Amino acid sequence: MAEGAAQDLLLAAAFVSDAQYNRNIPFKTSPEAVRLYHLYNHWMMRTATYFFIFLNLSLALFEEPAVYPLPFLATSVLEVLCLLVFLGRLTHFAKVTLHNVFWKDTKNICIMVAILLSLTDLAIYGVLRMYDVRSIRWSRIVRPIFLINFAESRQIRRAFRSIRNTLPEITYVFLLFMFSLLMFSLMALKLFGERNLQTAEGLPYFRNYLEIVFDLYVLVTTANSPDVMMPAFDFSSWYTLFFIAFVIINTYIFMSLFLAVVYNNYKKHLKNEIRKLAYMKRRKMIEAFNLLKEEEGEQFVVREAQWKQLVKLVAPDTSSSHRELLLRISDDEQKGFVDKKSFVQLADLLNIQVVTLRVRRHPLARWVPALYGSAPSRLLRSIVRHRAFVWTYDAIILINAIFIALDEETPYISYAEWVFLALYIIEILLKVYTYEPREFFGKTQFWNWFDTLIIFAALTATILNATLKSTLKYNSQQILDIVFILRVLRLIRIVDSIQRFQVIMNTLINIVPTMLTFGGLTLVVYCVFAIIGMELFHGKIQYFPANSNAPHALECGNPALKDSLFARGKYCKNNFNNFASSFIVLMELTVVNQWHVFANGFANVTVQPAKLYFIAFHIVMVIIIVNIFVSFILEAFFVEYSLEKSEVETAIEQKIQELGMGVQEDELQHEQLLDNMESAEHELEGEGGTKPQSKGLVFKIASKRYRTVDALLQRMFEAEIPLEDEGLSFEEILNLSPTSAAPRSPSSESAA
Amino acid sequence: MAEGAAQDLLLAAAFVSDAQYNRNIPFKTSPEAVRLYHLYNHWMMRTATYFFIFLNLSLALFEEPAVYPLPFLATSVLEVLCLLVFLGRLTHFAKVTLHNVFWKDTKNICIMVAILLSLTDLAIYGVLRMYDVRSIRWSRIVRPIFLINFAESRQIRRAFRSIRNTLPEITYVFLLFMFSLLMFSLMALKLFGERNLQTAEGLPYFRNYLEIVFDLYVLVTTANSPDVMMPAFDFSSWYTLFFIAFVIINTYIFMSLFLAVVYNNYKKHLKNEIRKLAYMKRRKMIEAFNLLKEEEGEQFVVREAQWKQLVKLVAPDTSSSHRELLLRISDDEQKGFVDKKSFVQLADLLNIQVVTLRVRRHPLARWVPALYGSAPSRLLRSIVRHRAFVWTYDAIILINAIFIALDEETPYISYAEWVFLALYIIEILLKVYTYEPREFFGKTQFWNWFDTLIIFAALTATILNATLKSTLKYNSQQILDIVFILRVLRLIRIVDSIQRFQVIMNTLINIVPTMLTFGGLTLVVYCVFAIIGMELFHGKIQYFPANSNAPHALECGNPALKDSLFARGKYCKNNFNNFASSFIVLMELTVVNQWHVFANGFANVTVQPAKLYFIAFHIVMVIIIVNIFVSFILEAFFVEYSLEKSEVETAIEQKIQELGMGVQEDELQHEQLLDNMESAEHELEGEGGTKPQSKGLVFKIASKRYRTVDALLQRMFEAEIPLEDEGLSFEEILNLSPTSAAPRSPSSESAA
Repeated sequence: MAEGAAQDLLLAAAFVSDAQYNRNIPFKTSPEAVRLYHLYNHWMMRTATYFFIFLNLSLALFEEPAVYPLPFLATSVLEVLCLLVFLGRLTHFAKVTLHNVFWKDTKNICIMVAILLSLTDLAIYGVLRMYDVRSIRWSRIVRPIFLINFAESRQIRRAFRSIRNTLPEITYVFLLFMFSLLMFSLMALKLFGERNLQTAEGLPYFRNYLEIVFDLYVLVTTANSPDVMMPAFDFSSWYTLFFIAFVIINTYIFMSLFLAVVYNNYKKHLKNEIRKLAYMKRRKMIEAFNLLKEEEGEQFVVREAQWKQLVKLVAPDTSSSHRELLLRISDDEQKGFVDKKSFVQLADLLNIQVVTLRVRRHPLARWVPALYGSAPSRLLRSIVRHRAFVWTYDAIILINAIFIALDEETPYISYAEWVFLALYIIEILLKVYTYEPREFFGKTQFWNWFDTLIIFAALTATILNATLKSTLKYNSQQILDIVFILRVLRLIRIVDSIQRFQVIMNTLINIVPTMLTFGGLTLVVYCVFAIIGMELFHGKIQYFPANSNAPHALECGNPALKDSLFARGKYCKNNFNNFASSFIVLMELTVVNQWHVFANGFANVTVQPAKLYFIAFHIVMVIIIVNIFVSFILEAFFVEYSLEKSEVETAIEQKIQELGMGVQEDELQHEQLLDNMESAEHELEGEGGTKPQSKGLVFKIASKRYRTVDALLQRMFEAEIPLEDEGLSFEEILNLSPTSAAPRSPSSESAA
Repeated sequence: MAEGAAQDLLLAAAFVSDAQYNRNIPFKTSPEAVRLYHLYNHWMMRTATYFFIFLNLSLALFEEPAVYPLPFLATSVLEVLCLLVFLGRLTHFAKVTLHNVFWKDTKNICIMVAILLSLTDLAIYGVLRMYDVRSIRWSRIVRPIFLINFAESRQIRRAFRSIRNTLPEITYVFLLFMFSLLMFSLMALKLFGERNLQTAEGLPYFRNYLEIVFDLYVLVTTANSPDVMMPAFDFSSWYTLFFIAFVIINTYIFMSLFLAVVYNNYKKHLKNEIRKLAYMKRRKMIEAFNLLKEEEGEQFVVREAQWKQLVKLVAPDTSSSHRELLLRISDDEQKGFVDKKSFVQLADLLNIQVVTLRVRRHPLARWVPALYGSAPSRLLRSIVRHRAFVWTYDAIILINAIFIALDEETPYISYAEWVFLALYIIEILLKVYTYEPREFFGKTQFWNWFDTLIIFAALTATILNATLKSTLKYNSQQILDIVFILRVLRLIRIVDSIQRFQVIMNTLINIVPTMLTFGGLTLVVYCVFAIIGMELFHGKIQYFPANSNAPHALECGNPALKDSLFARGKYCKNNFNNFASSFIVLMELTVVNQWHVFANGFANVTVQPAKLYFIAFHIVMVIIIVNIFVSFILEAFFVEYSLEKSEVETAIEQKIQELGMGVQEDELQHEQLLDNMESAEHELEGEGGTKPQSKGLVFKIASKRYRTVDALLQRMFEAEIPLEDEGLSFEEILNLSPTSAAPRSPSSESAA
């Protein structure tokens, strides 16, 4: 029975942990499987998986055409290793989850097919290579599948699903847009085609229909904006009306329409996904509850002891005081048990980052109390805490900025740099002297960490540089560059002194994790396009240093580029000759400007239809993904502007206040907060600990920092998701359509 | 008493009309003033005012530097005339409104000051001109004030107010953005400044701090995207990381942030304005009610006769059947009077466009019933009504498109054009034969009008062209251009055959009136910048035709432009030499691409700080106004996607259905609808009019067409504006702040 209870507890912990992190894996409930499942979710296993996914993707850097060439044997061994790891991970997953669920999941099938394809292709390529036949490593294109389809990449998969769902709507707008483009092109052909006009490069202007379509498509992206108009404009000013109408309709209205459609659909589908997640979470919490419940009067409850053990299992690194706080919130009236309603909240409670501020005395106050408490020391500390101290250092930073901008060669200025470094180090030392060091370097003290690291890195690099210079007479440019960057980064600190900027910065920092999802999305698209691009354009365009006397050095090694804008713009280094270069080219294409020069250049050295590659990239990356990114930023900022604290957060805060262990974080400046803590400490000393509950602790909610991306998303749509009902079977949740309103069964307790 | 009642009615009509069109003019209630007020709001007076406003603005075309030069005397007489009209309009307004209100309104003060300034400047300029002293017509810059400040331009004023309210928030983001820009520039200076790199034009690369700031600002707009990176990239691929970080942070994140801030604030302030409007409307309706109310049992009501007279006064061009319908909605139970609640709805009811479809028989059916009802005629009509008929003509249009694209010179193809024209005319004739002509050319039949006009214009132009060609052997290019454009425009018709495209097109057509507001906004900004631009850059850059041998023809007549990108791009015609050219340049600057070439070019021919003009234009036009435009399009589309009919519309529709006079417009295709009407007609013929109410009429709501911009805006925020309460005095409404939630007094009947 005891072992059964322990197993139940482990199972319940798995459920709660899944609910907390919004994992949706239907694992087997046998004790064996639950233990395997715990292992599966261990952070080391997950990190290792990601490591091998990125290793697999980065193999493209070492394979031909390589940035850093490695022998074929080495890369193929590495690839096989990666594939084996993926297979292992998948096998592990198969052991954890139910048999029929595993085989019905397209993710798993995808991974297996991708592994198989990669191995086959590798084998064929290897064999052909032995006989010196060059073939294409076409399977490299499937590598991003691993990034998308492993269960850890939920965010990226969701974004892809959202894109897939948006496609039909986008397609209609796109067709209408294409229709408008074709119509305008036809008009342009008729209006300008027979005028014998010439472009600035002396080429025929608007003669060929397909070329007009391409030119006007480029105009929609504004990349050839006045140039494409100038010949017609020079001929007659009235023709500008054609281009003005074109730009208003296609660039302004249709492009905004794309954003509107993407935004609208993205929001709709995301909302649906998040609603699913919320139901799943609730369902899992109820399953956990049902495992641990005991009868108490007329209702089922979870006893305090059980509850504590559960929390210890789920979140082993929370302090016991934090656990106590959570218990007090869940068991409001201190009855010794947690009822169902409060229990279900646990997953949300665990997701809220409560910072435990331990009111500690400064180590110096313990070691040398007389000195630390003396009048000069007290004066010093009150100076450091004063606002003027911050202002003084802001002024120093500004003066430093001016010094950085001035010429480095003057000896006074390079000496001044040492003075500034010294001043910054003194600042940090003073702060550590004034504030408790463990608090100063607390987890949430982002800026303190930032400051200290930057200063010490700058110090190290500057000393290193000076040493190299004085001993070896050698001026390392790399180290100097790093020193420069670090020095300038130090200036960011000034932003944090201004309240309004702080708000904007905090929002930006908050959405960084979610932006990583778009990083993943971009990585996938870039990988696919880079690999295709390398196959299509590899070696067609070469870069030669400025003083090279290779044939056609000025035409990027390809006579087809003679007199082209590509060669004239000195774009030769923008080529698809290796993975890194391809990424840079794709980045430039994402920025859009001059993309037609690239498209024309690469079409000149291959065939004209090569332009389709660039158009396809524009549609996928700019029209869809950048718009989704913009939608996300818009939505995130609206949430930041409109939302205050969530309900659960308010509950926690209330409880903290009730228990008299709170500090109102928003009302207090950082320095004042620390002041406050110290005075609380003095009070405790004086009263000899008459407040047994506070035990020298203060809690605060690390407000507006979302621990997980899902938490932010849930916050976005919180108001629209009813959290009361909990019914709905697994199937029903998965089949929730975006159009269906609230689910049917409002509060049936159908949980198994 | 009778006269008193008539005056009350007139006053009430003025209130209702103000409520209907959301006018907010506190006019005097004396009979004299009310009559003057009716005159003030007469459409002829309003049109005349707009005419003179635009005449005044377009004077810039005729004044030096002129597109079409007129003698100074002529333009100054015209200007004085305009100013007199403005003064007259203002005097009229002063007579209508209360004395203290008039003098407290900044709008009026602005207009008076502007008139005074213009006259003074004109006089000074005229006198100086007599003595041949050239001075600046600086007062031209105040001309847009008339467009903004006349009471008719409510939308533009609201947009400006919204911008003003958004400014503080934008300023913070902008400062942060500038900080980031300055930081990156500093880094760039340190990293690249001492490398002795050169740009593609052979100029020093990233040496001067201010130039770096400008170059990186341009990079934010992506206008110099790969070029500014290439020298660093050629030096070392690692330096691209600097530019990638720069673009992600500044172009993607900060520019999205600007959109988010603009959108958020725009929405917030607009919502507030619309809420004010809604309260004002309600207040005016209550004032009207109080004027006409009579006691009936325990409540006050408006008698049917009074109500009908009122509606006749307010909307003289509604049909009596339409009026009857409105009465039936307002007086639901046919009690012979309208109560307060229903009366207040009247303004909204009048704003809904109810289309009265008169079920008329085809004229031919009356004149030659035998022929029209014969079997071949019936067959013909059923063919025309069939879907296949539409498809056939869609196919013809497509074939026509291909013919247009082909070479004009082949005689077969120019003959084919006549065939197509004939086919289109036959189509229109057949349709007129089948459908009732007055219905076919009804007010809401946009596409029928469009088609017919285009075809007849094309026919006329083609005949004219052919005549000119055959008789005078003269090929008029202008007429040919028009023919080409008309032919291609005909192709748009195909879009209307596809349901999904129809929805998108209808939304686009619906938001056209509101886009005109942005047109006005843009006009104001363009005017101001064009006038400043002409003063700064007039005559510095000249355009010479291609074969000119004037000195420095290739450098746009200015040696300072030698070897510049401006001259190389053949941008000489982009200058500020007259009002029209300035507008085209500003349009190109709005599109953003290559704006740095313009900025550098104009800075080269004047002084470097001239770049500030271009930066200022970018900030005002692109960062603020284009973002507001995008916000508006986003919002309008979200409303179109999410909203169905409004409450009042539903009420009307219900009533129409109840009365058995309705057709469900959305469910029926246009052709089917007409079919339906005809069959209804047959039914009536058969039953001999057993439905006395329908009288051969069918109503439908011209769904989703907004008669006024305000109506659309109100629809946008309808859900969030509580319409129940009606209290709040005039002052309170005007002082509503965006942050204040619902107003205080929920239902106090404080109306005077």
